[in-house]
Amino acid sequence: MSSPAATPATVAKPHAFAPVFALLAPHMAELDRFLHGQLASFEPEIRAMADYCIDTSGKRIRPALVFLSGWRGPTTVTPDLVRVAAVVELVHLATLVHDDIMDEADVRRGRRTASREFGPTAAVLLGDALFAHALHLATQFPTTEICAAVADSTRKVCAGEIVQTLRRRSTNITRADYQRIVDLKTAELFRVSCFLGARLAGFELGYVEAASRFGRHLGIAYQIYDDLVDFFGDETRIGKTLGTDLASGKLTLPLLALLERLPATERAALTAELVGEQPPQLALRLRQMRELGIFAVVAGSVQAEVAAATAALGEWPGHAPTPLLLGLCAVLEAQVAALRPAPPEN
Amino acid sequence: MSSPAATPATVAKPHAFAPVFALLAPHMAELDRFLHGQLASFEPEIRAMADYCIDTSGKRIRPALVFLSGWRGPTTVTPDLVRVAAVVELVHLATLVHDDIMDEADVRRGRRTASREFGPTAAVLLGDALFAHALHLATQFPTTEICAAVADSTRKVCAGEIVQTLRRRSTNITRADYQRIVDLKTAELFRVSCFLGARLAGFELGYVEAASRFGRHLGIAYQIYDDLVDFFGDETRIGKTLGTDLASGKLTLPLLALLERLPATERAALTAELVGEQPPQLALRLRQMRELGIFAVVAGSVQAEVAAATAALGEWPGHAPTPLLLGLCAVLEAQVAALRPAPPEN
Repeated sequence: MSSPAATPATVAKPHAFAPVFALLAPHMAELDRFLHGQLASFEPEIRAMADYCIDTSGKRIRPALVFLSGWRGPTTVTPDLVRVAAVVELVHLATLVHDDIMDEADVRRGRRTASREFGPTAAVLLGDALFAHALHLATQFPTTEICAAVADSTRKVCAGEIVQTLRRRSTNITRADYQRIVDLKTAELFRVSCFLGARLAGFELGYVEAASRFGRHLGIAYQIYDDLVDFFGDETRIGKTLGTDLASGKLTLPLLALLERLPATERAALTAELVGEQPPQLALRLRQMRELGIFAVVAGSVQAEVAAATAALGEWPGHAPTPLLLGLCAVLEAQVAALRPAPPEN
Repeated sequence: MSSPAATPATVAKPHAFAPVFALLAPHMAELDRFLHGQLASFEPEIRAMADYCIDTSGKRIRPALVFLSGWRGPTTVTPDLVRVAAVVELVHLATLVHDDIMDEADVRRGRRTASREFGPTAAVLLGDALFAHALHLATQFPTTEICAAVADSTRKVCAGEIVQTLRRRSTNITRADYQRIVDLKTAELFRVSCFLGARLAGFELGYVEAASRFGRHLGIAYQIYDDLVDFFGDETRIGKTLGTDLASGKLTLPLLALLERLPATERAALTAELVGEQPPQLALRLRQMRELGIFAVVAGSVQAEVAAATAALGEWPGHAPTPLLLGLCAVLEAQVAALRPAPPEN
């Protein structure tokens, strides 16, 4: 990477949280230095593969949550926060490597996935090595608390991925099922990132808990936003193919809301697409979503989670991280608004 | 499992260490109870899959090393040792689940692999969940020492698997490369099992180190034995297909020794089989191994490692684990001797 410090601001793929991240340039530069320094601990054969994964111009949302939740002022970049930011990012990268094997994804963040680049076999092991290294770093704190939190979150993230995979191509999924999957596979790592940041910065337990609740709700909101992007995003800006959830039979909230509102025959047709009996009709389903106001319904769910995240910090307005974390909420809402489709033409 | 206590003695597949394991029946019964008790902490969707992996009538060699290295007498089955035995076994089971995906193996221990039973996609995640749960259990000790040792070993085991996978179908492998792969993928978990057992039982650091060295050398010896079994074993007794290393282009010590001793044309032919250009000629290669005395050469390597393992404990004859651990060496040597092929018929 030629200019690590610039990474958060100059990624090819813009993302929901980019503006708030400008604050974090020094933190992210430290994180990049730390992550690249870790490569030496990998066996030579794995080093290039790990480097490929680390150096993906990723969004680094989870590290940002660590740094913001542990915010004590703009000039304080503590080694503890950098280390734990690396831990959550490595766990996240490991899940991406394994996800991309299962999704048979070709491209992520505008370049070949590790699975395509090195083959699925090596990718399974590479993900394992990244997980193991994350846990290894987590054991370098004085107590078992950090390591225990990370191991438990990792377990939940894996569980969420499993449940989602097992439910793929199943249309017997309720909103409660969707919520549970999102809670495990996304919100948990957001939650623990906020927990670890606030905890390591030495905030009182009440605030640590508030930050954790904030992280969980923000994680749910972010996942719903991400699911909206898969239908309403701009392919060139997002850097990945749209409509993949429909094509792979993943019943996300926009699809759930559409299924609930379609007349019986169309519902049967969409079900056939989801279970893989019929080819996906992305254009048709998008038109139906527009006609039935699905965007507004799902955006309402994002807003409800953002409101819950905001409320979690309601009693702690004076703590340094609070305005920054709330800033993330505002940015996410703006990004959701930017996805809003034009009204139907008829 | 109808009779957990009987598992170690009654597995369908006999293994090198079975006799010494009779001592450990109460420990293994506790371990089985503990492992099955852990199933409740998995998400409902994963529980059956995890149960399938746990309940494989496995050899439980690594837990046995924990119990024997921490031996304080036949009636002492401490919760700490049971927990850490579960940790090393879960790490091992996770690597098996991921290995079987990559090897496209159908059968392990006489039944379908997790990858065949649940599909490779679920198997990737199941392995992850088992890893994460192992680390989660490792964080339940008062200090980070146990968790750090387990995370570091897990990282090395993954590294060993990666290196082996990357080298598959390569014939440019030296004995030093083989040694390094074995050290990482097998000996490390044997080593840490002995380390953890001795450490948690409260033995002095000199003994803990001696037990660790013992474990490492025993692990190397065991892996070489296992590689011998793939050529000289009895298919019905072993419960898996023979010749898989030749077929999959895995250059183990018997094949390395054969390559070194074959005349140039035959060497080129074997190389073509290893890289996958020609179908494997198992019967021919076995005959050549017999003619060239490969068994004795490789068995000599096992003996050298057993001697090193024995020497590691040389200064500690009076410690309770010592005679039991040395008993494992004797059993392994006997099992190797039992593989010795009949002399060539000419």
